[in-house]
Amino acid sequence: MSLDNAVAKPHERLAELLAADLEAVGEVIRGRMASKHAPRIPEVTAHLVDAGGKRLRPMLTLACARMCGYEGADHVKLAATVEFIHTATLLHDDVVDESAQRRGRPTANLLWDNKSSVLVGDYLFARAFQLMVEPGDLRVLDILSNAAATIAEGEVLQLSAAQNLATDEAVYLQVIRGKTAALFSAATEVGGVIAGRPEEEIKALFDFGDALGVAFQMVDDLLDYWGSEATGKNVGDDFRERKLTLPVIKAVAQADAEERAFWKRTIEKGRQEDGDLAQALALLERHGSLEAARQDALDWADRARDALTRLPDHPIRAMLDDLATYVVARVN
Amino acid sequence: MSLDNAVAKPHERLAELLAADLEAVGEVIRGRMASKHAPRIPEVTAHLVDAGGKRLRPMLTLACARMCGYEGADHVKLAATVEFIHTATLLHDDVVDESAQRRGRPTANLLWDNKSSVLVGDYLFARAFQLMVEPGDLRVLDILSNAAATIAEGEVLQLSAAQNLATDEAVYLQVIRGKTAALFSAATEVGGVIAGRPEEEIKALFDFGDALGVAFQMVDDLLDYWGSEATGKNVGDDFRERKLTLPVIKAVAQADAEERAFWKRTIEKGRQEDGDLAQALALLERHGSLEAARQDALDWADRARDALTRLPDHPIRAMLDDLATYVVARVN
Repeated sequence: MSLDNAVAKPHERLAELLAADLEAVGEVIRGRMASKHAPRIPEVTAHLVDAGGKRLRPMLTLACARMCGYEGADHVKLAATVEFIHTATLLHDDVVDESAQRRGRPTANLLWDNKSSVLVGDYLFARAFQLMVEPGDLRVLDILSNAAATIAEGEVLQLSAAQNLATDEAVYLQVIRGKTAALFSAATEVGGVIAGRPEEEIKALFDFGDALGVAFQMVDDLLDYWGSEATGKNVGDDFRERKLTLPVIKAVAQADAEERAFWKRTIEKGRQEDGDLAQALALLERHGSLEAARQDALDWADRARDALTRLPDHPIRAMLDDLATYVVARVN
Repeated sequence: MSLDNAVAKPHERLAELLAADLEAVGEVIRGRMASKHAPRIPEVTAHLVDAGGKRLRPMLTLACARMCGYEGADHVKLAATVEFIHTATLLHDDVVDESAQRRGRPTANLLWDNKSSVLVGDYLFARAFQLMVEPGDLRVLDILSNAAATIAEGEVLQLSAAQNLATDEAVYLQVIRGKTAALFSAATEVGGVIAGRPEEEIKALFDFGDALGVAFQMVDDLLDYWGSEATGKNVGDDFRERKLTLPVIKAVAQADAEERAFWKRTIEKGRQEDGDLAQALALLERHGSLEAARQDALDWADRARDALTRLPDHPIRAMLDDLATYVVARVN
C-alpha cells in the first residue's frame, strides 16, 4: 500500500483491495443490463451506472465475503444483485420524488420519461432476482427477497409519514431501516452466509450493515439542513419537498404553539413562503435539533463498530471499522 | 356437475373444480398483501384485488399442477406469486398509460397517486419473490424470475415500438409475448415442474400457455377496434393513446401514400382530430385488417389446443381446450 493510500478514504482503500472483484461485478452489471429487444433499457441504466456512485453496497458484499474467507465466485453475482436492486430503487425514487438531478446529472425521468424509469426499474428488479437465483442458495434468496420487500414497505411508509407531523422518531427509524438499512444489512449478511460462517458471526454482519445503513441515512438527512458546497448537498431540498426527517421531528417534539403552526403550514400544508427555510433553520438551531440528530448518527456508527468486534480480527475488518467512521465524518 | 355447469363458461367450470385451491390462493393473497407498518399497501392492493378479475393466471397454475397429478401444497403459493406479479404490473401499467379506469373502477393512481402505485407495485413484486422462494425449487425460481424479466422487457419494448410506424408484426409478437404471454407460459410450466413431469410434457405446458397468452392479447387488441357494449371494451382507446397494435400494423403495411400520412399524423405525431377514429376504422375495414388479425388470434388458439394434445388425456385437459376456444370466442 502506498503512502497516499494510508490516508486514502476507507471506501477507496476497500475498492483498491477488492479491485479485481469490483471489476468482475462491473462486468456482470454491464452484461445483465443489456437487452436484446429493448435498447431503451441499457440506455437508461447506463446513464445511471456510468454516473458512478461509490458502489458502496456491492463493496460491502464483496468485503464481507472475503473477510469471512469465502473463496468461490458467487459473491460477484450477489454484489451485482445488490447494486441492481439499488439502481432500480433510485429510478423509482426519482419518479416518486419528481427529482431533476441525481449524481450531478439530470435524472432518467427527466431525460426520457417517467414511463421509462418505472419500467426499466422493473426490469432491473427482475434482473436482480434472476441473478440472485443463480448461486442456488435458498437462504441467500430468502435474505435478499425479504430485503426487497422491506425496502418497498419503507418507501410506502415514508409516503404517508413524510408530511405528517405526528411522525415520531420510531416511525422515522422504521422508514430509514426499510429504505436504506435493509439493503446494507442484506449486503453484509449474505457475505457471511455464502462463506458458511457460524450464526453469531452472520448476526454480527447483519447488525453491522443495519447500523451502518441507519447512520448513513441519518447523516444524509442531517446534511440536507447542514450542508455546504463542501458536502455537495443542496440545503433545504427535504424542507421544500415537505419530507419530515430526524432534525425536524426533533424540533417538532419541542415546538411551542407558534412553532407548531409554522411546521404545520410549511410541512403538512406545504404553503411555503420566502424566508421559511431560514426560519426552519433557526428553529432547528434554537432546539439543538441538528446537534441531537448528529449525536444519534454518531451513536449508530458506534453500534456498527461494536458489531464488528464480534467478528474475528482481519485487515478488512479494520477497513470496515474505518468505513463506519467515514460515513459520519461529514458531520463529525 | 349440474346441467347449468355443462354450459357454463370454461373458466367458471375450472373455478368450480378448483374452488378449494382458489380459496387457499385468496387466503395467501390476503395474508401477504398485509403490511404491519404501511397501511397504504393493503388499501391500494385491496382496491385492485377486490375488484376481481377472473384470476385466470393463478387458475392456470392450479389447473396444470392438478392435471399433472400434483398432490402437494406449493401450487397455491406459486399461483399467488403469479397473481401478485400480475397485480404489480397492472399498478405500474396504469401509471405508464395514465389510465383512469381498471376493472370498471377508478385506478389506484387516480384514487391515491402515482407514487403509491409505483411503490405498492414494487412491494407486490417483492412479495411475489418471497413467495416463490418458499417452495425451495430452484427450477421454479428460474422460470418465474425469467418471466418477470421478460415481462418488463416487453413493456419497455412497447414504449418505443408503440408510436413507431416501422413496428412490424415480428416486433408486435415480441411485445405481447413479453407483456402477456410470458406470465401465462410461466404459470402453466411451473404446474408441470412441481409435479415432476417429463420434459416433453413441461414443454407442451409452456407452449400451451405461450399460445394462449398470445391469442388472449391479440383478441384484447382487436376488440379495441371491434368492441361493443357486449364485449365491455371501449372502442378506440389504443388509437387515442397512439398504441400501435396488430390491426393497425396490418393496415399500415398495405397503406398507400395518403393513408400512410394519416397514420403518421394520428399515431406517430399524435395530432388527432374529430373523425379520425372513424377514418381509422374505415381503413382497417378497407384492407381487411380486423379480419386478418382475427384469423391470427384463432390460429394461436389452435396452437394452444395443439400443444394440449401432447399431454395425457385428463378432464382438466378438456377444460383447458375449451378455455382456448373461449379466449377467442369474443371474436369468433
